[in-house]
Amino acid sequence: MLGVSFYKERIISNPKGDIFHIIKKSSDGFKGFGEAYFTTIHQGVVKGWKRHFKMTLNLAVPVGEVEFVVYNETEFETYTLSASNYGRITIEPNLWVAFRGIGEDNLIINIANISHSPDEAENRELEEIDYEW
Amino acid sequence: MLGVSFYKERIISNPKGDIFHIIKKSSDGFKGFGEAYFTTIHQGVVKGWKRHFKMTLNLAVPVGEVEFVVYNETEFETYTLSASNYGRITIEPNLWVAFRGIGEDNLIINIANISHSPDEAENRELEEIDYEW
Repeated sequence: MLGVSFYKERIISNPKGDIFHIIKKSSDGFKGFGEAYFTTIHQGVVKGWKRHFKMTLNLAVPVGEVEFVVYNETEFETYTLSASNYGRITIEPNLWVAFRGIGEDNLIINIANISHSPDEAENRELEEIDYEW
Repeated sequence: MLGVSFYKERIISNPKGDIFHIIKKSSDGFKGFGEAYFTTIHQGVVKGWKRHFKMTLNLAVPVGEVEFVVYNETEFETYTLSASNYGRITIEPNLWVAFRGIGEDNLIINIANISHSPDEAENRELEEIDYEW
């Protein structure tokens, strides 16, 4: 789908604890830095739908497993991220996004090009977009 | 200690899963964006010592608990971060850093002002700096 990309990111094994790349200034999909924050999502629960007008999301899941659904008013695309299917998805503005927690504990990081502002996003109730969860 | 600061960061409670602020472009201690990566550290294990010449670290711990020790060749300072003692520490360059995993699983994020490069850091063995772990 136009505006959504998955990038495999490197995991560096270390006997004391692994290192997981997220994003560099030079990475494809990097659109500047505005804010970094974590979101958690409980098992079986869905957050969404939300559409940003300006924010490009760069998402990775280091703990648990999360299913992201992106909707462009015509079609849906799903991406399932976890530590074992590790990588980053870049989601450009103007796409509807919802996500569901699959693991017991689920952690998402977003490296966003702008700081959070309620003015640049709109929400729809889960039922307002016809997707079979 | 000069060059090290702790900032309390906000946790936004949400019945579907909480949100944890890490850092914004406008935050104190933000020195530009070069790279974001995760480090894990196993329980009871210490990684260190490492000193960066150019990198400013911005560290937060969303999972587990981690004890960070900073050394400026004169004195030591310790910071223990976790989801329950949540916040961010900014560590400027030219300070020795080591850290120990306390929780069962421990996750650290670093929002760094430059991308990783082995040229701008030096390492010492754990025993080379006399600290009682």
